[in-house]
Amino acid sequence: MTTTTKKPLSDIEIANKATMKPILEIAENAQIPLDAVEQYGRFKAKIDTSKISGEATAKVVLVTAISPTPAGEGKSTVTIGLADALHQLDKRVMVALREPSLGPVMGVKGGATGGGYAQVLPMEQINLHFNGDFHAITTANNALSALIDNHIHQGNALNIDPRRIVWKRVLDLNDRALRHVTVGLGGPMQGVPREDGFDITVASEIMAIFCLATSLKDLKQRLARIVIGYTYDRNPVTVGDLQVEGALALILKEAMNPNLVQTIEGTPALIHGGPFANIAHGCNSITATQTARKLADIVVTEAGFGSDLGAEKFLNIKAREAGFKPSAVVIVATIRALKMHGGVAKANLVEENVDALKQGIANLAQHVANVRNFGLEPVIALNRFITDSEQELKAVLQWAAANEVRIARTNVWEEGGKGGIELAEKVLEVIEQPNTFHHLYDLQETVEQKLTKIVQQVYGGAGVQLTDAAKKQLAVIEKNGWDTLPICMAKTQYSLSDQPSLVGRPTDFVVTIREILPKLGAGFLVCLTGDIMTMPGLPKQPAALNMDVAEDGSALGLF
Amino acid sequence: MTTTTKKPLSDIEIANKATMKPILEIAENAQIPLDAVEQYGRFKAKIDTSKISGEATAKVVLVTAISPTPAGEGKSTVTIGLADALHQLDKRVMVALREPSLGPVMGVKGGATGGGYAQVLPMEQINLHFNGDFHAITTANNALSALIDNHIHQGNALNIDPRRIVWKRVLDLNDRALRHVTVGLGGPMQGVPREDGFDITVASEIMAIFCLATSLKDLKQRLARIVIGYTYDRNPVTVGDLQVEGALALILKEAMNPNLVQTIEGTPALIHGGPFANIAHGCNSITATQTARKLADIVVTEAGFGSDLGAEKFLNIKAREAGFKPSAVVIVATIRALKMHGGVAKANLVEENVDALKQGIANLAQHVANVRNFGLEPVIALNRFITDSEQELKAVLQWAAANEVRIARTNVWEEGGKGGIELAEKVLEVIEQPNTFHHLYDLQETVEQKLTKIVQQVYGGAGVQLTDAAKKQLAVIEKNGWDTLPICMAKTQYSLSDQPSLVGRPTDFVVTIREILPKLGAGFLVCLTGDIMTMPGLPKQPAALNMDVAEDGSALGLF
Repeated sequence: MTTTTKKPLSDIEIANKATMKPILEIAENAQIPLDAVEQYGRFKAKIDTSKISGEATAKVVLVTAISPTPAGEGKSTVTIGLADALHQLDKRVMVALREPSLGPVMGVKGGATGGGYAQVLPMEQINLHFNGDFHAITTANNALSALIDNHIHQGNALNIDPRRIVWKRVLDLNDRALRHVTVGLGGPMQGVPREDGFDITVASEIMAIFCLATSLKDLKQRLARIVIGYTYDRNPVTVGDLQVEGALALILKEAMNPNLVQTIEGTPALIHGGPFANIAHGCNSITATQTARKLADIVVTEAGFGSDLGAEKFLNIKAREAGFKPSAVVIVATIRALKMHGGVAKANLVEENVDALKQGIANLAQHVANVRNFGLEPVIALNRFITDSEQELKAVLQWAAANEVRIARTNVWEEGGKGGIELAEKVLEVIEQPNTFHHLYDLQETVEQKLTKIVQQVYGGAGVQLTDAAKKQLAVIEKNGWDTLPICMAKTQYSLSDQPSLVGRPTDFVVTIREILPKLGAGFLVCLTGDIMTMPGLPKQPAALNMDVAEDGSALGLF
Repeated sequence: MTTTTKKPLSDIEIANKATMKPILEIAENAQIPLDAVEQYGRFKAKIDTSKISGEATAKVVLVTAISPTPAGEGKSTVTIGLADALHQLDKRVMVALREPSLGPVMGVKGGATGGGYAQVLPMEQINLHFNGDFHAITTANNALSALIDNHIHQGNALNIDPRRIVWKRVLDLNDRALRHVTVGLGGPMQGVPREDGFDITVASEIMAIFCLATSLKDLKQRLARIVIGYTYDRNPVTVGDLQVEGALALILKEAMNPNLVQTIEGTPALIHGGPFANIAHGCNSITATQTARKLADIVVTEAGFGSDLGAEKFLNIKAREAGFKPSAVVIVATIRALKMHGGVAKANLVEENVDALKQGIANLAQHVANVRNFGLEPVIALNRFITDSEQELKAVLQWAAANEVRIARTNVWEEGGKGGIELAEKVLEVIEQPNTFHHLYDLQETVEQKLTKIVQQVYGGAGVQLTDAAKKQLAVIEKNGWDTLPICMAKTQYSLSDQPSLVGRPTDFVVTIREILPKLGAGFLVCLTGDIMTMPGLPKQPAALNMDVAEDGSALGLF
């Protein structure tokens, strides 16, 4: 898989040149019973989880990262490359990833399926509609909106206050014009006018529910618990009150089965679900992870953004709901990104700058501490970049040695699994050892106690303060008995604090909780620390402008 | 397939009891090359049309109906039953149908895949997401909207007037609250405020394009021609001007391959596309029909509503674009519905009423005349209902004999193909004879000439008048050279006239054209004769309230 050409191929060129195995062969190699495999074309399948027996016993390796920077760290690429490396070492391994959202694909990303020789295939279909899961979630979300507005229009037996509906519509697109809309205009035959807005589908509570539900029954119960708004008397109104959880579950049923695909090297991959890591919990579905844990000995999975966001929620929310203990955590870092945390501008990253690098390592240090605070031992994946200098490399390795953290260089973009062997070997060392994994807080602690633990032990901050609005919301939450839910922090990904500009390792900061939104279906309290964008916009030159389809049907312009 | 039980099973009960053949077996029986079959689960497939060689030579049988009434005629059921009957007679037959829209399924219908023992399977998946085609169309439509609003927000290089954008967003749901909305609210960072609205996906011009495109190249060219609005100088702005036809085609690419399923009796069915028959042309895709014509000797297909709507457009638009000549037309009627056209209220349909029936037959007579005006010979399918009396039956048969129209009783709901044998035999008689099929108008005729021919020869009316607004629009259309496009009438389905209450066979009426909308991508001029609902609403008790999914995963509440 090593390429020796000077000008590297683009991701889609590499993907198009790769020879895929029929998905039935991938399934057979993974010992998936063939009657559980529902083919979707030649190279994709859905796995009927009701036909997968056995216990979910595989060890879980979580891949996280330092605080993301515009330099890019390559977390998905490393996740895939690590799985390929373990596969090369003859381990029974599966990789479990999130599905890409079409909005960013058409906006800035052009694709989100790893890179270089560490990709999942078929790249094009995974990046577009995949097997329709996000479309099912969009449809369920918007069917609920239509049913709410219809309920009010048809007499409003539940006494819903149209001004206090919190359920928003969604589309899986970047569309800023839909952030704030008014609906129901045009007169008495066209519904009841009210303010509304659209989020991107990955921000839908149904996406979070989809990823946390452990069975169809659990799915339905969670859907029924969704609070869609409040009555004129300020009492919560749920999906269960509207009696439509059955219809929503029916819309989601087919999508609930995880999707099997393969890496370029033929490692089996389950890709399923994809909630935001800021407003939601940022991990692929429990269904996929637990199915992979029944089928393999090691499951490599990832969580969104840095360890302060996706990993914290993976460990405090997803692992708790699913009832498993992770065995190791990989923290992806690059010298480039660490230099940005040390204050270097993106334009100057090609220049060697050991001093800035040493400063930026402070960010990595916090992420290492975070993992250890959960009783887990991290392995740093230092993802190679062509501009890395020997002096810079030395500085990072010295720091790691001094802090007794395992570190491995990875070169999976260029070499595939071979470029992840060193990382794989260190991960194997860690997962053989016992660990003392524990959640960071108990559910019975107060909301403020939980928040304080997250801020102090994961962000490295001093503490937390609630705005008056948040205090009011917390009072309602406590009154309704919802305060025993876990916390889902909604925070900028760019800083360990709640201030995006504070890169590196800020200290002594107090995090402000502006709002606390109960998401009873997902089963967590979203605590907003700032303006979290739940519907992105398109850039001046959207990636869509480069996309095309050739007359022979091949896709162009996916990166 | 005959059932002798007194209390008939529901459609979904019958569907769930049916034993489906693996889709590969259906494909093999239909002599579809296996490398053209992309399985989507065990019982659905997409057909890669690039792998289907040969000429499209099968004879085409079009199934249409009298003007629809609340009594229901069972057109899809007869279409499927006729194909099954031809299959029983050892003909190489395929049925080509439209895909159901989720909006009506969740609103009033609960399902739209035929009925009784004349159904296509898997009923549940076809009625829900099927293979994602409508989701792809929704996404392409709304991606275009997002790109338009982004273009304006980012500087508006094309000088688009936000007040003159004609491109609307869509969802495949019944959602009246989205008919009239304002978007882009919230300040300068949230886009440019403007009025907008959502149609149901089946009303999207992209749906019409999807169904009329004959290749990927044609698809892209049609997309590029879509007029999304006008500049401040009133010049049209197209998708080509925005340079995003490639991205939209990429989103649609996978969906462009038609979907193979089976009837309860194992007859191969291609189900693909589903434009509205009022605002659009109301037929399944040309791709599906032509693919079926390469694979079979006879293709049975249907068009929406009565012969004045779907069939007129099938014959004047679809057959012209695809370049084929139909061989026979079946007109579905029921005694119940004819009695409604004779003035009987729905509640009184159980009573024998030969006089009203005779009056109502006038509606059927116009539909027979319509078909003959195209140089085709109709066969009436008199779809049996339990309340039909011998006297009523005699009256219809006598009328048919007097007018020398072939007529056959069908009982396909109860008996499947066996209940359609008589119809099949009469259809076989007709398709063996030569016909003098011709389009009703030439494209070079003026818009008013084309309109007059449709009104006089298809509706039985006196003529046509244009409102001042329509005249203005026609002037713009002529100025731009768009007047050589075919006409797509947008008219109520309940009457042959433009007045929904005029059932039976109204005469001497003048049809008012209120607006003429150029749809350059679809390649027709939509002529609006009244308020055509392009976004339905939900009823007081939506079908969704009955829908559910059992713990074993089976669907409940689809009828």
